Parts: sequence; C-alpha cells; structure tokens
Amino acid sequence: MRFIDQLRAAQAQNQSLLCVGLDPLPSRFPAGAARDSEGTFAFCRTIVEATADLVCAFKPQIAYFAAQRAEGQLERLIAHIHAVAPQVPVILDAKRGDIGSTAEQYAREAFDRYGADALTLSPFMGFDSIEPYLKYPDKGLFLLCRTSNPGGDDLQNQRLVVAGQPRLYEHLAELAATTWNRNDQLGLVVGATYPQEIARVRALAPQLPLLIPGVGAQGGDAEATVRAGCPHKDSGAIVVNSSRAVLYAGSGADFAAAARAAAQATRDRLNAARAPV
Amino acid sequence: MRFIDQLRAAQAQNQSLLCVGLDPLPSRFPAGAARDSEGTFAFCRTIVEATADLVCAFKPQIAYFAAQRAEGQLERLIAHIHAVAPQVPVILDAKRGDIGSTAEQYAREAFDRYGADALTLSPFMGFDSIEPYLKYPDKGLFLLCRTSNPGGDDLQNQRLVVAGQPRLYEHLAELAATTWNRNDQLGLVVGATYPQEIARVRALAPQLPLLIPGVGAQGGDAEATVRAGCPHKDSGAIVVNSSRAVLYAGSGADFAAAARAAAQATRDRLNAARAPV
Repeated sequence: MRFIDQLRAAQAQNQSLLCVGLDPLPSRFPAGAARDSEGTFAFCRTIVEATADLVCAFKPQIAYFAAQRAEGQLERLIAHIHAVAPQVPVILDAKRGDIGSTAEQYAREAFDRYGADALTLSPFMGFDSIEPYLKYPDKGLFLLCRTSNPGGDDLQNQRLVVAGQPRLYEHLAELAATTWNRNDQLGLVVGATYPQEIARVRALAPQLPLLIPGVGAQGGDAEATVRAGCPHKDSGAIVVNSSRAVLYAGSGADFAAAARAAAQATRDRLNAARAPV
Repeated sequence: MRFIDQLRAAQAQNQSLLCVGLDPLPSRFPAGAARDSEGTFAFCRTIVEATADLVCAFKPQIAYFAAQRAEGQLERLIAHIHAVAPQVPVILDAKRGDIGSTAEQYAREAFDRYGADALTLSPFMGFDSIEPYLKYPDKGLFLLCRTSNPGGDDLQNQRLVVAGQPRLYEHLAELAATTWNRNDQLGLVVGATYPQEIARVRALAPQLPLLIPGVGAQGGDAEATVRAGCPHKDSGAIVVNSSRAVLYAGSGADFAAAARAAAQATRDRLNAARAPV
C-alpha cells in the first residue's frame, strides 16, 4: 500500500489530522520510569498505545534514539506500532540529505532496516539527493521546505532572482510539486508558525501532503494551520505534528492518560477547523 | 585540543591535505573479505592502518554503517583510529540538520557517543540548526555550502535578491565566515568540480577550513582545487577528501597496498600544487 493511501485511510479511520512525534528525552520521563534505552522503548510504547486510535501517523525522531545507542529500540518501536496499529503509518524523522550511493544507504536504513513508511529529507543538495529514495515506490518523502524556527529565514526565506521573485522555499515547493515528483511520493515540511506561508506552499503544491510541525509546544495556531493547509475538501493531505505537548502532558503515573487527553484535544481542535466535507 | 589545531598539526606531521573517506560498501570489498558488519570494521581498519601516515583526516560516512546495523562497528572504528593515529582527526560525515533539543541529541551522538572530532552539517534550517553544536568548543563543524553533484544547482546556485546578488552558497559562506562563526569552529564543504566556486568561497571566507570532496572517483582536478582553496600560504586549511578511489583501488589480496599507493599518489599530487611556503 502506498504511503499516501495509508495516510488517507488512517485519517479517515481515526478521523484525525494529528501526528504524534516520538522524541523521547529520558530526563522528561515520568517519575519512576527507567531512563535507559529499555525505558525509552517502554515510554514510547505507552504513548503509542494510549494514542493510536487518535492519530493519522506517528513520527519517531531518530536523534533521540541514536544519542543513547538505542537503534535497536527504535527498530522494536516501529515494529510495535505496525503490530498494534497497522493502519497508522510511521514517518521516520531523520532529515537525511546526501547523494548517490550514500543516499541509497540511508534509504536502506529507513525502509529496509526500520520499516518506516515515510521519511523526512533535507533538499539542500537538490534533486539527486531525493531521487535515490524514489526507488521505493510505496514510501513517502517529506522534504523540508519552510521551517518555523527563527533560523528558517537565514536561507529558506531569501528571495531569488527569477521571474516573480519567489523565496527559496517557494522555489522548492514548485520543484517538488512538478518536476521532482515523478511518482507522487513527495510531500513538504512546513512549520505552523506562519499560516500565510502554509497557504503559499499549498497554492504552489495543491496536492502534496504537508507535514506541519509546531502545533502545541511550539505554539502554532491549530485553526489557522488547518485552514491554510487544507483550504478545500480536495486539498492535499495535511499531517499536523505535536510531540512534546503530548509526550510530556503528564509527569506522574497518569502520564498515558494525560498524553491521550492532550492528543484527543488537539485532534478535536484540528477537526473543528476542517472545511466541511 | 581544538579541531582546527589538530587538523593543522596532522597536515604538518603527515605533509598532507588528503582526507580518506570511509564509505564501506560490502559489495566492493576484496575477494574473500567478510561482507558483514565485522568485515566492515576489518576492511576499514586495514585501510586506516595502510594510510594513517599519509592523511590529515579520516571521514567515515555514517550511512554505510547505519544501513547495516553497524553503529557498534563505527564506534569501534573511530576508537581504533584514535588509538593507532592519535594525531589524525576524525570528521564524521552525517550532514545533520535539525534544531533545538533534536540537534543537541545529534551532537551527543557525534561527539559523546562516537568521539568524532568534527561533524558535517546541513545548514538548510539556518543558524539555530548550527548553534547547538557550538557548545562543544573543541569540535569542528563543516557546513554544506556548494556541493558538486548536478542537483547542487537546484538550490545552492540560485541567485538571491540582495546587494551584489550573491548565489545562495555565497550568502551562506558569508554568514558562516562572519556572524555564525562565534567560536572559530566552522568550516565549509565545497565540491571540487568547479574550482572557480572554491575560489569564490575562499574569497568570502578566507580563514575557514574547507572540506573538499570530489577529487578522485568524482573527477575533480586536484591541482586546480588546491590553487583555488589555498591561494596563499596564510589561507585557511583545506582538506581534500577521496573515498572510493582509495578504498577500492584494489580488489584482491593486495587491496591495502593498492589503497596506500592511491593515497600516496593523491597526497603527492595535492602537495605539488600547494603554494610554496
């Protein structure tokens, strides 16, 4: 099953645009939890089981596993998500960006080793840093486009000298929506902080799925985000990520229930903002 | 010891601008070699021992290890390099690019877990994707600037609308050489294919170390590369990487001797092109 179909099916089944990001920081685990790699798996598993019927995707961030030598636990976690929630796709957040045989190795890592359904990529090196991943036709690829951190302006928001003078991120959105998207596998990562930029990306890439981090802990406005990313009922999919606001909603024994309540509230807020079907 | 001092000392001691890239592809190992993760370590160890007195750095590429679940062998390899060639710094090629607490985890991975002396980074997300690494003041950071793959033009070579209309990569070189380089830790990755662009980056960043891949298998001209990157005896350091042309110089039992001969020839070619001291 192709990623985009998996995503659409999960969105329909769970009536959700919410993606829960799995960024496990042992220092923020609830009191009494093990702060080692085994504890990392246990924490993430609990969050997954508490929210699997409320989300359209899970997004583990690989750095949190790699820093603590817990690649084996990441393999185990993704397998566990596929076992307990086979309808929910897994987007591995690794922001890979390299070319040729190196990119092929990263693709093997993400898809063959970890079994991810989609992967985030950095497009800085251009199309030949995207192309090797297209050999996995069922997998989805989210390219960084417009990130909402302050430094996002340093490069992405620079204006280019070409007809219409787009910003770099607009140029990229056009490339990804046209010549680069050979097999309908591409999506874009667009931060939630500036809804007018989400709208701009949506106008340039009407059908691409958008992965939108920054709702929740990072403060993006859920309603404006949904309206900008999903202006019509036929717009491309949007996937709105929340990590810390869900993961660390509680810090005691009830953390799973707190995470579930936070996920549910965010899902409902996103749904309330959707265009009527 | 700071990375840049380590690099300078290794360049002086081994009279070399050459960095050997460790991109181990089991399918290209010599006949009879084990094609598993243990064999990957053994292959890289042999290359390291055959070339350690001829190089100014080693550059392992993490994807080749991650694809085959060989992170433990990468840890072991870097420790081995530090043991047998303590004067030669290790540049971990991972092209990380993320912000905030995620970047902190990547820094922990590269520096605490693997013990790398320097790391490659993708600057697409801007300065706050660089800043977390600056908390390790002895470590070096090479930012992708102008890569020589065909897709390098897609973004990096786009012309910006600002005074003087620089290209994106020139804008980045200026940022890295000025406001971003708070603690003299930054360097730039510039491909060898277009020496005039190396010269342009060198003019904008006279003192930054440049990591230059693309000599050897990728076909860059060694002499033009050195002249462009190192126009004066007081120019910033250059580190010229060759991976496949050294690693796979031989495919039989003599592969270590063949790798050594290839490294020596490349080193000598680079040295012959240096400005007289």
